[in-house]
Amino acid sequence: MSERKISQAVISRLPRYLRYLGDLKDEGVERISSHDLSVRMHVTASQIRQDFNHFGGFGQQGYGYNVDYLYDEIGKILGLDHKHTLVIIGAGNLGQALANYMNFERRGFITMGLFDKNPKLVGKTVRNLEIMDINEAPDFIKKNNIEIAVLTLPKAGATEISKQIVDSGIRAIWNFAHVDLDLPDSIVVENVHLSESLMKLSYKISRGAGDEE
Amino acid sequence: MSERKISQAVISRLPRYLRYLGDLKDEGVERISSHDLSVRMHVTASQIRQDFNHFGGFGQQGYGYNVDYLYDEIGKILGLDHKHTLVIIGAGNLGQALANYMNFERRGFITMGLFDKNPKLVGKTVRNLEIMDINEAPDFIKKNNIEIAVLTLPKAGATEISKQIVDSGIRAIWNFAHVDLDLPDSIVVENVHLSESLMKLSYKISRGAGDEE
Repeated sequence: MSERKISQAVISRLPRYLRYLGDLKDEGVERISSHDLSVRMHVTASQIRQDFNHFGGFGQQGYGYNVDYLYDEIGKILGLDHKHTLVIIGAGNLGQALANYMNFERRGFITMGLFDKNPKLVGKTVRNLEIMDINEAPDFIKKNNIEIAVLTLPKAGATEISKQIVDSGIRAIWNFAHVDLDLPDSIVVENVHLSESLMKLSYKISRGAGDEE
Repeated sequence: MSERKISQAVISRLPRYLRYLGDLKDEGVERISSHDLSVRMHVTASQIRQDFNHFGGFGQQGYGYNVDYLYDEIGKILGLDHKHTLVIIGAGNLGQALANYMNFERRGFITMGLFDKNPKLVGKTVRNLEIMDINEAPDFIKKNNIEIAVLTLPKAGATEISKQIVDSGIRAIWNFAHVDLDLPDSIVVENVHLSESLMKLSYKISRGAGDEE
């Protein structure tokens, strides 16, 4: 596949394409034109064609896209064609919520361990995983060659543990802590700052506007 | 304040400014130059000045910004200078995690009710709130003049309840369901699609790049 440098904006749209294509698969639709897809997704057909052109096009002129094929190809681009191992560090409400979220597993993201510093949580079982002491996380990551660490703990703890697990060979951090982590460029970081999302909502309410991004 | 039409990109950056200014306040810093703030935030001083110019500038040339003043002003722009009422619909792990998250309350977002359709959850208490039956949500929203509904339930349920609560006068929806809601333009919607965030992470791992946005 001839793949140029793709912009973040295009990448950000791929999971949404995948979601709609998954729905189409569930409905038994085999082919769809960029026009019909654009109507469903409330974007222009031209944007869809431009986005897909970054990855070689996927489709045949005037014949529409093969839904199964397109679904698989976008999945491959997103790295969903193989399993990813993860640990969740911080086993409070949010950590447990993520551990219990079946959809991630269906997508190939396998939770291998759960950690917390709270002795009341350590030893408790969530989704067949016994919560371990946070001090064991770096060794566990190293031994099990874990790819992704999900940080669902307060910001001081997140900053500290992130530095420790970098040395254990972690490749990516999915960061829910309300802090920007200062890590080597080789580590992939994706932030989910829930408070910031809520503030954007609040801004839009104040402005009286319902202009969704 | 002379406020022109502000781009989504600028708005998206305001909560991050607020977070850094909050840290500065905690450290007892009273004034900060755009240069010093830029070093902390890893953005350019020019971007900071440009962003703040959208709101009249906030600062005095060569004298730096007053941290308290700037914090309060950005808070006002984000609508954080008054309370917001919300209900959480879907009291599973994620809904309970959000209900238990103290930070939202500190920011003025007050959880007034929790709802679920699962009879096993209804009647259970979370943070002093008794989980109510989802069928009571529309009336509760109307009677209590609730501003924000947080949707933490599967997509079929989210689509259905969102239509019902629109008629109850809800002003905004913070949507965690993995679906795009089709609602009147007057309703503010902010989506948090966790699976999509995880897929972006996976994409970046596949590409071997740690290029954070």
